[in-house]
Amino acid sequence: MKSFNKVAIIGTGLVGGSIALALKKKGLASLVVGVSRQKKNILLARRKGAIQAGSRVLSIIKGADLLILATPVNTIIDLAPKIAKLTAGDCIVTDVGSTKGQIVSILEKLFPNYVGSHPLAGSQKRSMANAHPDIFKDSLCILTPTRNTKKRALNKIRALWKQLGAKTVLLTPATHDRILSFVSHLPHAIAFSLMNTIEVSYLKFASTGLKDTSRIAASDSRLWVDIFLSNRKNMLRSIDLFQDNLARIKSAVQKKDKRVLSSILKKAQLKRIRLT
Amino acid sequence: MKSFNKVAIIGTGLVGGSIALALKKKGLASLVVGVSRQKKNILLARRKGAIQAGSRVLSIIKGADLLILATPVNTIIDLAPKIAKLTAGDCIVTDVGSTKGQIVSILEKLFPNYVGSHPLAGSQKRSMANAHPDIFKDSLCILTPTRNTKKRALNKIRALWKQLGAKTVLLTPATHDRILSFVSHLPHAIAFSLMNTIEVSYLKFASTGLKDTSRIAASDSRLWVDIFLSNRKNMLRSIDLFQDNLARIKSAVQKKDKRVLSSILKKAQLKRIRLT
Repeated sequence: MKSFNKVAIIGTGLVGGSIALALKKKGLASLVVGVSRQKKNILLARRKGAIQAGSRVLSIIKGADLLILATPVNTIIDLAPKIAKLTAGDCIVTDVGSTKGQIVSILEKLFPNYVGSHPLAGSQKRSMANAHPDIFKDSLCILTPTRNTKKRALNKIRALWKQLGAKTVLLTPATHDRILSFVSHLPHAIAFSLMNTIEVSYLKFASTGLKDTSRIAASDSRLWVDIFLSNRKNMLRSIDLFQDNLARIKSAVQKKDKRVLSSILKKAQLKRIRLT
Repeated sequence: MKSFNKVAIIGTGLVGGSIALALKKKGLASLVVGVSRQKKNILLARRKGAIQAGSRVLSIIKGADLLILATPVNTIIDLAPKIAKLTAGDCIVTDVGSTKGQIVSILEKLFPNYVGSHPLAGSQKRSMANAHPDIFKDSLCILTPTRNTKKRALNKIRALWKQLGAKTVLLTPATHDRILSFVSHLPHAIAFSLMNTIEVSYLKFASTGLKDTSRIAASDSRLWVDIFLSNRKNMLRSIDLFQDNLARIKSAVQKKDKRVLSSILKKAQLKRIRLT
């Protein structure tokens, strides 16, 4: 038996497209339709068999029993009221936005059967062209139910992510945003800043160390502007704490304090070695 | 014809061990001997066929026509005077230290045929166990001759690195240290600081972004203490400039200045995309 009759995916990029391909591969839906602003994206999604029908117009989502919002954070918020008018009350709704506080508070008012998702399975590569049904395999997907979340919606969305291969974990939207500011948003701010610090003429001397440390700076900057601004207070706090830690290294180097510098670097090394 | 008769490698770790294995693979030396503080390291180097003889005692290097110092930065400086007493004046000498200003100024006074090298082919993994003859293939090796460097020594060392598969580039020690502070030492300081900023309980939410950005924090902290301190002024300057760039992102987030934030992130993204 199919888990869903009609699934509508708004935003057939890397994550939305990969969900569509995984739904198809696992045979979880009778019909998958997609919405994208770009016609070529819809054509590619159809050609790859990710969706059976696609449109630039939202009305294609009518009658869906599962709706997945997979656009950038701000577009989710902008489109939500229009989408709500086209969606039946019993439709299960989720999104895959990288920040949750703002989105969840808006979407749970618009959709009775909403639960927020954040699959930690992105990449600096975007678009349907890079979509793959297995990107969620062995990944972690954070779900952010609130006291308003319907148990049925949570169970359905949780089962969906498990079927796509992800482990699920439940966090409040606030906890999600605090943790992600450290493990994802801060590293992006660092990678962007690192690239802006290095003169172009020095880049031919880049070894794998610099390339790895800066890899995520190649991520779509438009996406990250919205993510930073939608998780503003946590971002500011995580940057503050990072700046303190970097200032400690700087101060030890300044003072030639080998003992302090050793203890700072050793602590970081042991922590990183445990992160496999 | 062999390029060298007897090659002595002080420090049979990742880089020294890989040079030994590459010399053997390419048949460039009649005899390769190694010095290590650790007996088990010598035994492993012999078992892997990297060296034909090894010792914890420096006198094994006597009679070498090529001497390679491949220990951590500070050990190179500490050992150099003792090694000079055991080395003939016409012996070609190089080191593979990650900073060059201090080392070159000391070593070129002790060894008439010295030229500094820095192969950009390391890894956070160390030791003979990870050594491999091909690690220099398609890598870049920076040579740092000065006005005192003998042309014959430079030519021999340059030819050696080319035979090991590396492209060579010549920089002054000062230029080397300035560039490396940005492309290598700063990313390490950032990776160490990032790890120290993140609570252990958050690490289970680490995706590939954080893992890549922090990978080099797993590097041997003892090595990096010495590297930071031996390139102190450049380190302080590169950290300063990075802090300025990060502060710009923080300020734009603080002020919700989408226009400025977009331009900062976009600039970094375009720079990173070109770094393949």
